[in-house]
Amino acid sequence: MDYGKMTIDPAAGQLLGKARKDQVETVWDRFEAQQPQCGFGLLGLCCRHCNQGPCRIDPFGEGPKYGICGADADLIVARNLLRQVAAGAAAHVDHAYEAIETLKIATEENGPYTVKDPDKLKAVAAKLDLEVAGKNNLDLAKEIVDIAFGDFGNHTGAPMKWLLATAPQERVETWQKLGVLPRNPDREIREALHQTTMGMDADPVNLILATVKQGLVDAYAGLHLATDLQDILFGTPAPVATEANLGVLQEDYVNIIVHGHEPMLSEKIVEWSKKLEGEAQAAGAKGIQLAGICCTGNETLMRQGIPIATNFLAQELAIITGAVDAMVVDVQCIMPSLARVAACYHTKIFTTMPIVKMPGAEHIDFSLAEADKKAEEIVRKGVENFRRRDKSRVHIPDVKTKMLGGFSVEAIVGALAKLDGENPLKPLVDNIINGNILGAVGTVGCNNAKVVHDSFHVTMVKELIKHNVLVVTTGCSAQALAKAGLMVPEAADKYAGDTLRTVLTAVGNGAGLNAPLPPVLHMGSCVDNSRIGDLLSALASYLNVPIKALPVAASAPEHQHEKALSIGTWAVSLGVLTHLGVIPQVLGGRKVTEILTGDTAESLLGGKFYVETDPIKAAHGLIEHIQAKRHALGI
Amino acid sequence: MDYGKMTIDPAAGQLLGKARKDQVETVWDRFEAQQPQCGFGLLGLCCRHCNQGPCRIDPFGEGPKYGICGADADLIVARNLLRQVAAGAAAHVDHAYEAIETLKIATEENGPYTVKDPDKLKAVAAKLDLEVAGKNNLDLAKEIVDIAFGDFGNHTGAPMKWLLATAPQERVETWQKLGVLPRNPDREIREALHQTTMGMDADPVNLILATVKQGLVDAYAGLHLATDLQDILFGTPAPVATEANLGVLQEDYVNIIVHGHEPMLSEKIVEWSKKLEGEAQAAGAKGIQLAGICCTGNETLMRQGIPIATNFLAQELAIITGAVDAMVVDVQCIMPSLARVAACYHTKIFTTMPIVKMPGAEHIDFSLAEADKKAEEIVRKGVENFRRRDKSRVHIPDVKTKMLGGFSVEAIVGALAKLDGENPLKPLVDNIINGNILGAVGTVGCNNAKVVHDSFHVTMVKELIKHNVLVVTTGCSAQALAKAGLMVPEAADKYAGDTLRTVLTAVGNGAGLNAPLPPVLHMGSCVDNSRIGDLLSALASYLNVPIKALPVAASAPEHQHEKALSIGTWAVSLGVLTHLGVIPQVLGGRKVTEILTGDTAESLLGGKFYVETDPIKAAHGLIEHIQAKRHALGI
Repeated sequence: MDYGKMTIDPAAGQLLGKARKDQVETVWDRFEAQQPQCGFGLLGLCCRHCNQGPCRIDPFGEGPKYGICGADADLIVARNLLRQVAAGAAAHVDHAYEAIETLKIATEENGPYTVKDPDKLKAVAAKLDLEVAGKNNLDLAKEIVDIAFGDFGNHTGAPMKWLLATAPQERVETWQKLGVLPRNPDREIREALHQTTMGMDADPVNLILATVKQGLVDAYAGLHLATDLQDILFGTPAPVATEANLGVLQEDYVNIIVHGHEPMLSEKIVEWSKKLEGEAQAAGAKGIQLAGICCTGNETLMRQGIPIATNFLAQELAIITGAVDAMVVDVQCIMPSLARVAACYHTKIFTTMPIVKMPGAEHIDFSLAEADKKAEEIVRKGVENFRRRDKSRVHIPDVKTKMLGGFSVEAIVGALAKLDGENPLKPLVDNIINGNILGAVGTVGCNNAKVVHDSFHVTMVKELIKHNVLVVTTGCSAQALAKAGLMVPEAADKYAGDTLRTVLTAVGNGAGLNAPLPPVLHMGSCVDNSRIGDLLSALASYLNVPIKALPVAASAPEHQHEKALSIGTWAVSLGVLTHLGVIPQVLGGRKVTEILTGDTAESLLGGKFYVETDPIKAAHGLIEHIQAKRHALGI
Repeated sequence: MDYGKMTIDPAAGQLLGKARKDQVETVWDRFEAQQPQCGFGLLGLCCRHCNQGPCRIDPFGEGPKYGICGADADLIVARNLLRQVAAGAAAHVDHAYEAIETLKIATEENGPYTVKDPDKLKAVAAKLDLEVAGKNNLDLAKEIVDIAFGDFGNHTGAPMKWLLATAPQERVETWQKLGVLPRNPDREIREALHQTTMGMDADPVNLILATVKQGLVDAYAGLHLATDLQDILFGTPAPVATEANLGVLQEDYVNIIVHGHEPMLSEKIVEWSKKLEGEAQAAGAKGIQLAGICCTGNETLMRQGIPIATNFLAQELAIITGAVDAMVVDVQCIMPSLARVAACYHTKIFTTMPIVKMPGAEHIDFSLAEADKKAEEIVRKGVENFRRRDKSRVHIPDVKTKMLGGFSVEAIVGALAKLDGENPLKPLVDNIINGNILGAVGTVGCNNAKVVHDSFHVTMVKELIKHNVLVVTTGCSAQALAKAGLMVPEAADKYAGDTLRTVLTAVGNGAGLNAPLPPVLHMGSCVDNSRIGDLLSALASYLNVPIKALPVAASAPEHQHEKALSIGTWAVSLGVLTHLGVIPQVLGGRKVTEILTGDTAESLLGGKFYVETDPIKAAHGLIEHIQAKRHALGI
């Protein structure tokens, strides 16, 4: 089957052929069926916020210029955008909130969770200005829980403490001047939703500022809070070797896939998969093979070395292998089609969260208090289901690639410290200054059926590293790049430009790898974009410049989720040029588009959005930006 | 001009003629321009929750059955509905939150706000199980503020205290069984937003339960909280005589309109309008005429007897009189077109809230701490602007009607107490039992350009009272009914059925009015739907039956706002049949529609939605329901 218009991933390609043979519908079929998509919606010119509507603005200026309430194109676009970004922020805040609840449980003796990383605990406590000396871990964790929950019960006008503790001071002052510092994350989300109802804000500029605020809510009450607490609970990632792509599934093993975004259950699944190996063998398997999809996959990869099965767009294809005995899902990016696909095979889908159910799936009501019991139950059901597997319908593509993951900021600094123990960032910064490393780009975010699966991530990143741009990555972008073989030492030789390769080799050897560092560093899940932010803060601080002066950029080449919009808004707010490879639904609002992608955003925030749908052009757009920043720094 | 297809309100009709002459666009023109509206949107079959979309489901089953993610029609409809209802809840919760902040300020000595109604303060405190005896008002208010804020900082699984204190016990148990009791309003709103993002809940039934939860968030952290605290701050309404319709504006007065939904600023505008009478006279006016639109208008009517200018759909027409010197807006239902309309006249639009700005309007940054200073500034600017009025462009329709308002539960019980001091509800209940009052309907909610302005409210209500159904009302519905002359004693003679008239006359005479009570009782603003809920609770409690057994119903005949959906969801959750006169955007989801309007909702909650777009048929549908409930009660 010629799958080139659908994916660049050969494993996915093989399974698309099997899907056709098995007459199973996939996301690509549904995308095809949805063409052509509504032009009003694509431009953001449709409003359904009240029941006088729906209203649509004619982008050609011949039909209606105003919605029934009187909203014009820019207002409708800005309202839609704010609501989308607030939804993205809500998703990450809800995730982080569960992390607080988990840490709270970890402060209790003999509970299912513990503080696994006391160093991180102390580091976070210190950032929060807590007295660390002489306190035991549980007491310190309790204080951290109180501060975290405190932000959610803050009824003053003071900004969120977690933001003040973790954002660069220069940024806090910029945001303060713009009046966008969030006070209480939940209050801001509620307010944004209110602000977008009929007959509220009629000023697109005010709505864009509110959108920036939601970006900060996402970043500091979502991403950063989640990463910090998850590191405390489950350990800060360190470099780890594993594999990626559907070839990690094994014919003679019980294959269990963890899918979603949170590590609270999946960490327990890892534990119980080990504990129930014997039962798997009793069931006729050689053992239990775990693998991950989306960010739950990234979480278990970063901390436990569990291999990646695949990323967002190919999630159905994992089932179509016929070899998945259980797919355990938690939250976010879980296609509602999964149960229908699974019904064509023996695979059991387990939903686990109260706000994620799915007709046709089996719901196990996971709770933090009963984490072990529920994880054990799920793994056991996966093992039982192995007996039902129809071997004649199994096809596991012989496609997988080795990869290195686990590059937390602590891990990166740790590796660099082997070169310069006193000033770990010095070797990196020196090589940026001397031009061996031209700059850095963080590629993040989703897949999107509008783009040939993984192609934008991979094509753009190859072009970037060829031009000596170091790439750090998270999310489905990281999984695309891993599958493409860009996270192995050999990739430095094969794809990196000469000077970048030299640096990667020196650092890799210095760090004791006896091989180059990969040119693409896997920094974790989508919430771990906080790690990229911290790395930028550290570099800016070392260089004594604001982040907006750094020769860096961000890119979400195949974004689809509202979360990607809120993360991107934060990146721009940090002062980072942020590329989008899929056109966001804003073009119908000329003023809004100009503000977001033009001088206004740049002069107020230092960053802006950059939309380019061609990966090679996008790479060169980012390179030009990096060169301009280098020039401005005089390097 | 023949305005019959646009409005039944003759004042609005006259001004539509003036609008045409003055070449000013109004909401009716924009509605016309939007025809035909998108069928996918009308059916709820369009999804824009991620950037793979927009996706649309073919309602005829020939085109796509699934969105790109795999969501089917019911899932898309249910997700859209939950997000809309969460937005409605967020609007009311944000309003109530500001009321908490105001009460907090009122606990400080010499601030701009005070506790005006110590009896209500004590009544609310008692409901919250606070020890009342021996405490001064400010201390009691502080405790109430702590409990109110406490719900917003509740990180346990326990339900909101405000709900437990104010909802009927029978309902609490029902909601508990369904798992829909809200814990912390902000947490629930955040969770609902999360739940509707791509790849989350795939179960329409679970989404509908979440929607019910949002209805409860709205009711108890929005409506009830706002009403309770506003009564404490500004006084519990008592019967008051005033007037309604644009004829209340006066040629030789400074005309200031308050518009929006919150009383915090408008109460101060009332004060300062009195204080600055002298300045108005110095400017050549006879004084200052205040009038209200939407629920800010209802708030100032209920407590201060300020007349109603008009309701939602006619808000632009107020400006088109050419006689409005200032229109002061706070939040919600404020058409973004107002500044464009005002630009054709001398009218100044003052926006006052940080989340409601409008290009072309003047923004006065109102804050609770500086309430007096800002109100004074606004009134003074209104007075100054009177000098700029062009008398040649003024046309105030000679259309207004007298009305009685102020029917809080306390006021209704107070009037009934004159008939039976010991059992005030007895005369009412006796007359329900003996059939003199067939039952009661609460008509609430908005106008909607899809309906001839006010026509559904008025036609349906006339039919109801003709059949001896007592009507209580709030919001724009109340304003429509006031303008139609249904809130005067004479309306009992003119429109009420014989037996209802007899009761109204007896109660009116007994209460010392020397005239019948009006057959339609104005109970306040949209947040004051809490008062209708309390009245139902009191009746149910007196009769020792659940609310769902009462011969009552609710109706939002011309609803448009997301708030109306969340209020309606609560009404259904209370066990009340809830009529919608405009089709909600759910019909594309057959299962969802069946659940909401069928046996499932009724068996789980006791109430359901009833959609009927013909006012006479709707009236008879409600009457049939009431008769069925009477039959079930054996009366």
